[in-house]
Amino acid sequence: MDFEAELKATAKRIDEQLAAIIAAIEAETPEPLLSAMRHALLGGGKRLRPFLVIASAAMFGTAESQAMRAAAALECLHCYSLVHDDLPAMDDDALRRGRPTVHVVYGEAAAILAGDALLTLAFEILADPLTFADPLVRAELALDLARAAGSRGMAGGQMLDLSAGLTEPSQAETMRMQHMKTGCLIEHACAAGAILGRAGEPDRDRLRRYGAALGAAFQIADDLLDREASEAELGKATGKDLEAGKATLVDFLGIEGAREHLAALTDEACDSLAPFGERAALLRGAARFVRDRRH
Amino acid sequence: MDFEAELKATAKRIDEQLAAIIAAIEAETPEPLLSAMRHALLGGGKRLRPFLVIASAAMFGTAESQAMRAAAALECLHCYSLVHDDLPAMDDDALRRGRPTVHVVYGEAAAILAGDALLTLAFEILADPLTFADPLVRAELALDLARAAGSRGMAGGQMLDLSAGLTEPSQAETMRMQHMKTGCLIEHACAAGAILGRAGEPDRDRLRRYGAALGAAFQIADDLLDREASEAELGKATGKDLEAGKATLVDFLGIEGAREHLAALTDEACDSLAPFGERAALLRGAARFVRDRRH
Repeated sequence: MDFEAELKATAKRIDEQLAAIIAAIEAETPEPLLSAMRHALLGGGKRLRPFLVIASAAMFGTAESQAMRAAAALECLHCYSLVHDDLPAMDDDALRRGRPTVHVVYGEAAAILAGDALLTLAFEILADPLTFADPLVRAELALDLARAAGSRGMAGGQMLDLSAGLTEPSQAETMRMQHMKTGCLIEHACAAGAILGRAGEPDRDRLRRYGAALGAAFQIADDLLDREASEAELGKATGKDLEAGKATLVDFLGIEGAREHLAALTDEACDSLAPFGERAALLRGAARFVRDRRH
Repeated sequence: MDFEAELKATAKRIDEQLAAIIAAIEAETPEPLLSAMRHALLGGGKRLRPFLVIASAAMFGTAESQAMRAAAALECLHCYSLVHDDLPAMDDDALRRGRPTVHVVYGEAAAILAGDALLTLAFEILADPLTFADPLVRAELALDLARAAGSRGMAGGQMLDLSAGLTEPSQAETMRMQHMKTGCLIEHACAAGAILGRAGEPDRDRLRRYGAALGAAFQIADDLLDREASEAELGKATGKDLEAGKATLVDFLGIEGAREHLAALTDEACDSLAPFGERAALLRGAARFVRDRRH
């Protein structure tokens, strides 16, 4: 099995689901809010988080069709966070995935509202009976996502990241910030699969440990790419964190040390999956993909 | 029964619940995000929306303690919308309830994140088993709130409101905008009470019709106050919509016409409650309060 081909094929089906979700709201959503939401949600991307929902759910015998809407909800939430992070008052980014960011095209007000609406839409999807018949599963998905995305998770992590230029955080503080900002949502992706698959607590914990290690690996791989890649290659401004005086783990560990840490985290992620045997082949592939990706 | 005394006493208990909700997240929420959330959530206010949740639920025999967390979730969501609406890119307000707005005190980035985190927290509360034991009720509450607050509801209404200075909307368009921006959330408050009370569809519809009429009444009363009140009396900048060239229903109907429309909406709201008899006394009091309030 070629993991990248599998990821690409799944991303195509996720994109179709996201387009269907936009289609369902477009008649009643005013402009330019609708166009801003579409720009944010349908602008490409690897769709790694929703892929992890689907691949994790599949381990427990849950069909892709049963996991697809929950996966799409997570992508809505992820895209909201990108729109708000790019705002002038936040990271002030004009480019994202090689395209102008939402506020550059539609203005700040529409960008703020598009982020708000995508965040709200994520929970609308999760709470909808169309997403999963059992209301307990829907409530658990919403609770887990909200915890991962809120002030003790992603939003708190972004706050810490914004403060990092001033406070010069330690290595431990940087790791905590990155776990909150990036790790929590990737951990949720894997936990969501286990929730959809009605897995027991021990299996949920295994998926969470896998997701937490994968999230940390993802971040350090991103920091390594940011350090190494040229702006043209990556399609977004690079060296930016360095300019802003923000330390990454690469600063603490050095490039070689960071690469070793990345490999160790990937191993840790795969180790958490040991009890699942061959069922976890796709998730192991995801871990290796995160370790080896060049873009 | 003195309605205002009842509202005030309930608001005090809602404030205690909101303080408890902040206390539960404060250890893990970084600064200045935590302070910005606290400023937004614990800054006073009539707490009319959560009061409506509690009063509506009580009609179906649901105790205040069983409705309190869902009521608090709605107030979190309402407060998020105030924080984001006040941002410089949106309505650019420096004062709210007589205090400086969140972005004035904590900066724009923290204000955006505090809004995001309060929105997320609303769904975290609703999805939590602590809020209601039956997961179907939790999922229904989350779905109804998300629909009311999203791109087809409140967020969409704010988009229309921001565009209103340019597009010179008709009376019908202005009414649609106000229904989305203000009405949807007040309608949700009443529907949430019916959901908590496990009311049947006909009773849910009655509560929705009451909420929709009350929401429209609330908005027109607000427009009348805005036209009449002095800045000092209301504690926020007034005449602002007029300056921005935004039409309100008062412009279309005139002050006397608007007062008559307000009275008709209040009657309409109360008529929807007729089948409930004396059980709906508190909700009728709320309608009269909205009609007669001077601040």
